Amino acid sequence: MPIYRAPTKDMGFVLHEVLKVHEQDIPGYEEMDADTTGAILDEAAKLAENVLAPLNPVGDTEGCVLENGVVRTPKGFREAFDQMREGGWTALDCDPDYGGQGLPYVIATAVGEQFSAANMAFNMYPGLTHGAYSAIHTHGTDAQKATYLPNMVTCAWTGTMNLTEPHCGTDLGLMRTKAEPQEDGSYRITGQKIFISAGDHDMSDNVIHLVLAKIPGGPDGIKGVSLFIVPKFLVNEDGSLGDRNGVSVGKIEEKMGIHGNSTCVMNYDGATGYLLGEAHKGMRAMFTMMNEARLGVGLQGYAQAEVAFQNALDYARDRLQGRDVTGAKNPDGPADPLIVHPDIRRNLMDQKSFVEGARAFVFWGAQMIDRAHRNEDAAAEGLISLLTPVIKGFLTDKGFEFATQAQQVYGGHGYIEEWGMSQFARDARIAMIYEGANGVQALDLVGRKLAQDGGKHVMAFFDMVKSFVADHKGRDESLDRDFLEPLKAASKDLQAAGMFFMQNGMKNPNAALAGSYDFMHLFGHVCLGLMWARMAVAARAALDAGASDKDFYAAKLATGRYYMARQLPATGMHLKRIESGAAPVMELDAAHF
Amino acid sequence: MPIYRAPTKDMGFVLHEVLKVHEQDIPGYEEMDADTTGAILDEAAKLAENVLAPLNPVGDTEGCVLENGVVRTPKGFREAFDQMREGGWTALDCDPDYGGQGLPYVIATAVGEQFSAANMAFNMYPGLTHGAYSAIHTHGTDAQKATYLPNMVTCAWTGTMNLTEPHCGTDLGLMRTKAEPQEDGSYRITGQKIFISAGDHDMSDNVIHLVLAKIPGGPDGIKGVSLFIVPKFLVNEDGSLGDRNGVSVGKIEEKMGIHGNSTCVMNYDGATGYLLGEAHKGMRAMFTMMNEARLGVGLQGYAQAEVAFQNALDYARDRLQGRDVTGAKNPDGPADPLIVHPDIRRNLMDQKSFVEGARAFVFWGAQMIDRAHRNEDAAAEGLISLLTPVIKGFLTDKGFEFATQAQQVYGGHGYIEEWGMSQFARDARIAMIYEGANGVQALDLVGRKLAQDGGKHVMAFFDMVKSFVADHKGRDESLDRDFLEPLKAASKDLQAAGMFFMQNGMKNPNAALAGSYDFMHLFGHVCLGLMWARMAVAARAALDAGASDKDFYAAKLATGRYYMARQLPATGMHLKRIESGAAPVMELDAAHF
Repeated sequence: MPIYRAPTKDMGFVLHEVLKVHEQDIPGYEEMDADTTGAILDEAAKLAENVLAPLNPVGDTEGCVLENGVVRTPKGFREAFDQMREGGWTALDCDPDYGGQGLPYVIATAVGEQFSAANMAFNMYPGLTHGAYSAIHTHGTDAQKATYLPNMVTCAWTGTMNLTEPHCGTDLGLMRTKAEPQEDGSYRITGQKIFISAGDHDMSDNVIHLVLAKIPGGPDGIKGVSLFIVPKFLVNEDGSLGDRNGVSVGKIEEKMGIHGNSTCVMNYDGATGYLLGEAHKGMRAMFTMMNEARLGVGLQGYAQAEVAFQNALDYARDRLQGRDVTGAKNPDGPADPLIVHPDIRRNLMDQKSFVEGARAFVFWGAQMIDRAHRNEDAAAEGLISLLTPVIKGFLTDKGFEFATQAQQVYGGHGYIEEWGMSQFARDARIAMIYEGANGVQALDLVGRKLAQDGGKHVMAFFDMVKSFVADHKGRDESLDRDFLEPLKAASKDLQAAGMFFMQNGMKNPNAALAGSYDFMHLFGHVCLGLMWARMAVAARAALDAGASDKDFYAAKLATGRYYMARQLPATGMHLKRIESGAAPVMELDAAHF
Repeated sequence: MPIYRAPTKDMGFVLHEVLKVHEQDIPGYEEMDADTTGAILDEAAKLAENVLAPLNPVGDTEGCVLENGVVRTPKGFREAFDQMREGGWTALDCDPDYGGQGLPYVIATAVGEQFSAANMAFNMYPGLTHGAYSAIHTHGTDAQKATYLPNMVTCAWTGTMNLTEPHCGTDLGLMRTKAEPQEDGSYRITGQKIFISAGDHDMSDNVIHLVLAKIPGGPDGIKGVSLFIVPKFLVNEDGSLGDRNGVSVGKIEEKMGIHGNSTCVMNYDGATGYLLGEAHKGMRAMFTMMNEARLGVGLQGYAQAEVAFQNALDYARDRLQGRDVTGAKNPDGPADPLIVHPDIRRNLMDQKSFVEGARAFVFWGAQMIDRAHRNEDAAAEGLISLLTPVIKGFLTDKGFEFATQAQQVYGGHGYIEEWGMSQFARDARIAMIYEGANGVQALDLVGRKLAQDGGKHVMAFFDMVKSFVADHKGRDESLDRDFLEPLKAASKDLQAAGMFFMQNGMKNPNAALAGSYDFMHLFGHVCLGLMWARMAVAARAALDAGASDKDFYAAKLATGRYYMARQLPATGMHLKRIESGAAPVMELDAAHF
């Protein structure tokens, strides 16, 4: 059975030596010294390693079952959810006014990595609830907040997001679900929603659905969409549960992975709903959660790569097969361990250097979200808004790619379900699709975010890279050669791509959009390059200061050098693809494909 | 339900306008005019499209079941296999002396693409049989050939290959299965083999297992391995079936995909076996089939990408979502079809340009095998031997990658099993692993094939590219700019990589092996670049000659331009990775990962 070991030390390194959370002037960060975060992460690790991880293959094998209209989750899920609730893990960064602990989002993110790596399908139940909590917290009336939030903070009630319909996913303007106003101020919701993660289950007393629907007579298309709270059980004035609402599960989808999560077709048959936020401004309400939700999906991507990597590494150390071409490393054994072979190492280093870079990127993103929310820092808000599609698209593509590479280390055993490596790849696959398919992320990045506020956020990013290089160059030859120079070169490729879009995209938007996917990946590489350069500076500083754990910091430097030498050169390829422009992509008539 | 349409026109283009099979001086090719091959391919298409493809999801859903020691294949498989046998499709390129049709291997390959695209798991039953047929045909005594081949040519009896054991896959020297000589000249085979595709089933009267085992007292390691024929039912002297042999199915593996094929644990308990070829030369006997078998797996890789592409293309034309940013293309409908969007086109063109290039590459490889076998052409034998790991490794990696991209076109529906796109990706995944994991292909390429016969085969490849460019340049500006120049540049990257290995690999083999995987991909890109340049020349010639189907040839040129502009630039990235040498890959101590 696959294992999971929470990488708390690596997390601490990012939090305290790279992001220096304790030194940041962000409300809530002042108490986040290394002892405190270490205690939180160690306690989370117990739940992740001992409870959630062993249930991961159970969830995959059993899946969720719909019986007589009731969804049954896999054996053990309910008890694990109780433990998660009792430990207060669902309330970490929630508002203390509603029972939350008010911890920084960056800490909740680190804990979230553990839970997601240990059991992605399971962690979606609290994850979706958190998204719905945020929407109600931001857009709800005081009464709505008082009614729903306390139970959602504890996950006594869970939440869902209902956007997609059979005929429309990305293009929500085509939506047919309707919301008819009632005399009492509520709405009657009628329609069908699909792909509803955690849509129904047997682990909570109530499910609070957030549903996008159109109020008849409103504006056409996407501008006529409103957001509604539709509880599974109506809530009485005293907070007790009342009648069953007119919402039911049509079926549970058979999916490639995340079998432990119930992906439901939800039927709304005149269900009672309550408007959340303003009428016809439903998309705006949804979008305020988007940065967080998409960062959470990017996290899922690299978290699956992390757990897959851990298992592949163990296997490469244990499995004896072949001999080191430069001389036996295990001469008394029948063969050497796989890890002596250069191509196995190439594979493992790909995974390791990606996962550690991705973690730094996501934690940094979470810190920006904290800064945006807690300091009302518009620059941080702008930058994370720009980087969100990169986090979501790049990290999930690569997360799947490297989970697949981890599976490859096992040879034939990687293809056999009982070894568990197939599940990591199958589960990781969804992250490239949901919360906006990665092609849509690329479109958001190039079509919207790049030019937002006159392009000042991307300029700020380039300035940040430039200052970073200027601040650190000339002090250490290896840092210059192995980190700063490659970062500069990669950033130059990114600037050249942006310039190409500016010069060609005005005349012909397709010249930019045809390169959008490559741009997202180019940008992702530069971000991970920047993260590795920052980690190298931190590791170098620790070694210079005489840190006792030299091997740990030396490994950071070696892993970073690998990323810069072996992964970062992809930027040149992406730039060439981008600069080939629209013609190769657009010239073939759709009829002649 | 997913569809499959056999691309017979594209196959005819490669066979007759690119490879010009009818003009080749290869025995058996003289009758292969376009009418003949067209008739064969059209007839095969009926079986592929109408019988095999509809059974593909059935095989995935039902899988194979072991009941009371007997393997039950999915509903409909048996009847389909009867149709395949009755149509003579299992005998296409087999020896007429044993009931085969003696057709060129390249024709069998084209038919194989259809069957494999339509139903990969199903086509492995005749596929494995063909491999066992080839081994007995090449290494068997006259008596063995007479006993087994006629029934294997018709697939009345099917075949298997037994190499892997629980503790050894790649490193077969560790094998424990033993073969004890008996007084009657036979051997008693005892041991356990795993991952045996088509290991047992209910579709044939007998299963002829080819089993690697060690004769006690023989040389240690891989040099003491011999190959044995171990029939499920012993064959009487008159050819009738006798007693059940001591071989049984331990279990059927639960796999990520190819559920329709029974992947068995086989237990040999003193089973009667017959030596095939010489004692202790079992690996040599296995390796004579390797080029064909690995080409067949490379074919599986792109065949899954082909069928996935066809479905993604249909979906992109049908699904209405969003509007073309340059103006509505379906103004009377609620939205435009997906295919108007540049990033959807980028995705589809990636798939299309890969699949068509891969088909040409594999057909060309099959033609080389024909030339090697039928003309005893050592140069062709050497070149296909060099290119075999590229065909296997590169085409299966990319086949999976693009099957996954095809799934992405469907958005959320791509993750739902009933749409069928998940199966294509899951099935394609195994091709990267079996018949030598792709890392082992890269090792074979760089560690063995590159230097074989003093490196003359890779030199021949470079000469071929050079001559091709020289022969065609200067006649057509677009051909020069869009095809020949990029091919030259990519080939230069490949030569530089080879040079790097020569200069560094002698001192330190790891300097070459650390770059082996990138070299395999670099080589694959150059091969597909060469194929596209050859296809462009053929398409140009057809247009110049006034071909009536202008759209078909223009689409070839447009698709080729896409490949050269958007895929070929990967060569520069692979070269940079290679040139970073051994250090980034090897420096981290195994204990500090």
